[in-house]
Amino acid sequence: MPHAKTSTTSRPSRRGVLFGGAAAGLGAIAALGIDSLTSTAAPAGASEPLHGHTMIPFYGAHQAGITTEPQTHATYIALNLRDALDCESLGRLLRLLSDDAARLTQGQAALADTEPELGAVPARLTVTFGFGPKLVELAGSSATAIQPLQKFTIDQLEESWNDGDLLLHIASDDPLTVAHAQRMLLKDARRYASVKWVQTGFRRARGSETSGTTMRNLFGQIDGTVNPSTETEDFNTLVWNADGSTTMVIRRIRMDVDTWDEVDRSGREFSVGRTLANGAPTTGTKEHDEPDFEATDALGLTVIAAHSHIRRARSENTTERIFRRGYNYDDLPSGSEVSNSGLIFVSYQKSVTKQYAPMQQRLADLDALNQWTTPIGSAVFLIPPGCAEGGFIGETLFMA
Amino acid sequence: MPHAKTSTTSRPSRRGVLFGGAAAGLGAIAALGIDSLTSTAAPAGASEPLHGHTMIPFYGAHQAGITTEPQTHATYIALNLRDALDCESLGRLLRLLSDDAARLTQGQAALADTEPELGAVPARLTVTFGFGPKLVELAGSSATAIQPLQKFTIDQLEESWNDGDLLLHIASDDPLTVAHAQRMLLKDARRYASVKWVQTGFRRARGSETSGTTMRNLFGQIDGTVNPSTETEDFNTLVWNADGSTTMVIRRIRMDVDTWDEVDRSGREFSVGRTLANGAPTTGTKEHDEPDFEATDALGLTVIAAHSHIRRARSENTTERIFRRGYNYDDLPSGSEVSNSGLIFVSYQKSVTKQYAPMQQRLADLDALNQWTTPIGSAVFLIPPGCAEGGFIGETLFMA
Ligand code: HEM
Ligand code: HEM
Repeated sequence: MPHAKTSTTSRPSRRGVLFGGAAAGLGAIAALGIDSLTSTAAPAGASEPLHGHTMIPFYGAHQAGITTEPQTHATYIALNLRDALDCESLGRLLRLLSDDAARLTQGQAALADTEPELGAVPARLTVTFGFGPKLVELAGSSATAIQPLQKFTIDQLEESWNDGDLLLHIASDDPLTVAHAQRMLLKDARRYASVKWVQTGFRRARGSETSGTTMRNLFGQIDGTVNPSTETEDFNTLVWNADGSTTMVIRRIRMDVDTWDEVDRSGREFSVGRTLANGAPTTGTKEHDEPDFEATDALGLTVIAAHSHIRRARSENTTERIFRRGYNYDDLPSGSEVSNSGLIFVSYQKSVTKQYAPMQQRLADLDALNQWTTPIGSAVFLIPPGCAEGGFIGETLFMA
Repeated sequence: MPHAKTSTTSRPSRRGVLFGGAAAGLGAIAALGIDSLTSTAAPAGASEPLHGHTMIPFYGAHQAGITTEPQTHATYIALNLRDALDCESLGRLLRLLSDDAARLTQGQAALADTEPELGAVPARLTVTFGFGPKLVELAGSSATAIQPLQKFTIDQLEESWNDGDLLLHIASDDPLTVAHAQRMLLKDARRYASVKWVQTGFRRARGSETSGTTMRNLFGQIDGTVNPSTETEDFNTLVWNADGSTTMVIRRIRMDVDTWDEVDRSGREFSVGRTLANGAPTTGTKEHDEPDFEATDALGLTVIAAHSHIRRARSENTTERIFRRGYNYDDLPSGSEVSNSGLIFVSYQKSVTKQYAPMQQRLADLDALNQWTTPIGSAVFLIPPGCAEGGFIGETLFMA
């Protein structure tokens, strides 16, 4: 999986570049490509390597938390706006939450923070905001409209995991930091909105593996190998709109680990077209080897089956690609369930209809993995551009 | 909070010491004090400091996971044995689970592990077993009996969080490792037992703060300052029985963060007798300063109130002490709740009746903290001694 740049600069100098002088416009920020710089300030005298004080800038052309190398913990919270909420109150809410996020991500207490000490360890905290259809409409923006995804035949969506007006995506390498940020944001939001759903996900702990190792999901698969690299023009073309925004699809996909485990290893590898050991295509030996979809076996059958997940996910049309950044979930089983596990599938792309939907349609029509996976929740959000200091996330919608 | 020894020795040589030659008995193991050695084997060629391959030995005089410096993530699972289960099947179950734990904690696949790759990063994984009253009885042991805790006036216990026959306490610095170990153990247990409850808890991520920093709970308090140090004779006297066993109390305590946040800082500090900033007693300046319970203010009132949590928790009788090793929980709020947070309070002590119960009785009678905390679950487990290679946890009960 590709990663955010991790050049380490001290905070003051980065700030100098960014906001020194009068007004470095958003264009300039974008040109500098600084939305994903990481600033590290280890506490003085520390004898061990500590990463609790590594910070991801909040301000920039794009929101943080997308090109950021995925943190260990992510919580996604969908809020529904209260019925009576008008455009002005919405603006107040967005200002308030942007301010909280700007402070908390930099290891500072939120305004009226009741447990400031819990926020002192940002550990790469990012807070990313997403706007559902109703919020976009309420903001009165004509430029942007956002539609929910159509229902696919494989979907068994539960209303309680669907949609939402305002998404808070909170991620950090430290679970206590996530809990604190979540609480501060929800405290400020609750006069304006109620919680629709909360999804908590995880990956390997920071420091467990070499940074840049592709994650494994709860099927044991290496998941995220083929993904546009964040440092490329390719990524910009696929993900970022000219104004710095993008769209996000979040699908809660249950994975039936019990029936999956009944299949032997080669059967499981066949269903995807990649090995479990190192994620190499079954026509190759290394994770990043290019799959050979034409290669045939002794019987003349393609080694990577036509109905395998990677064959079906890939389009001839190279503009039909997305950026995936999902998380595992493993919640408490209820009733007689032995497990309640799956993937919080998250993707970013300029256009849901042109990039995500055709791919999802192909996978819904035919995908060997469907036997063990079931989408149970689905939502689409506009991810507004980032903002500069003094601004707030969503401000461009009000201006449009 | 005191910590496990973290001397780093390579695995082969530790094994050599332990099991080289014929049979180093449990006594010898205890004498060597090796139950908490940590072995670290970083993968070759790693350029960053990695801790995914740090391992805690499974075999030893005591079970691991008690003197082990608390890992970031802990999951506690209480199982109820199936009705028909006889003593022989119980032995089989315990052998099976001990074998799983022995392998998984050393970064090896469990027998019949269907996702072996997920187990390759132990990250200080420990699996600690606890036996409830029914299991102890079934094993036919006359030497040990274990009683549930009495009900206290402050208790609002929910049956679904109480008791259990067999406790699995799974802890690691990596959440994916916990998920995998949990799944492997539950797969092996499910023919013999069903899940009664699951509690998942967390602390700061490894590497967020200097190792040895006392944890903070979701009230923002430093929690765990006054605790017997694991490397002392004091600890042995308070916690370990002669046979290497101990008992564990686990209480699920809801913390009402909303009403807590309404109180000003000094009021909150007064309720405990310690400051929020650094956990110092309100009569001192540093976290580990000895509280002065006699010190009075200008009005002649004691600075640390008679009904403060630390005053009430401390007995004149120094044998009435316990070893605390709890975790935060922050689960999905249900219905109209804004939060569902609290403490998975866990303590170890030789005797529940002589050490834990009188303290809990005092706190139930009077404790300023009670205004914001409510015990909603309670269970007591015998923690059998550790075992040597070839043995299994609980073997001594069958022999008794
Ligand atoms: C629980 C459900 C899913 C699982 C377990 C899963 C797993 C995987 C695995 C193991 C790979 C191969 C490694 C890689 O390149 O990442 C893969 C590739 C991929 N998946 Fe999925 N996936 C799931 C759902 C989806 C969905 C819903 C989409 C989009 C609609 C999707 C799109 C892709 C794409 C685009 C690739 C790369 C294909 C290529 O090589 O060009 N996946 N997935
Ligand atoms: C949610 C419930 C609880 C909270 C938030 C809490 C919090 C605290 C805090 C902040 C301290 C001071 C720092 C320290 O020494 O750790 C403390 C001390 C202590 N607590 Fe608790 N506690 C809770 C429940 C309990 C329970 C149920 C017990 C035992 C029955 C207990 C026993 C103790 C003891 C023994 C001390 C040390 C007292 C001393 O200084 O001698 N606590 N607790």
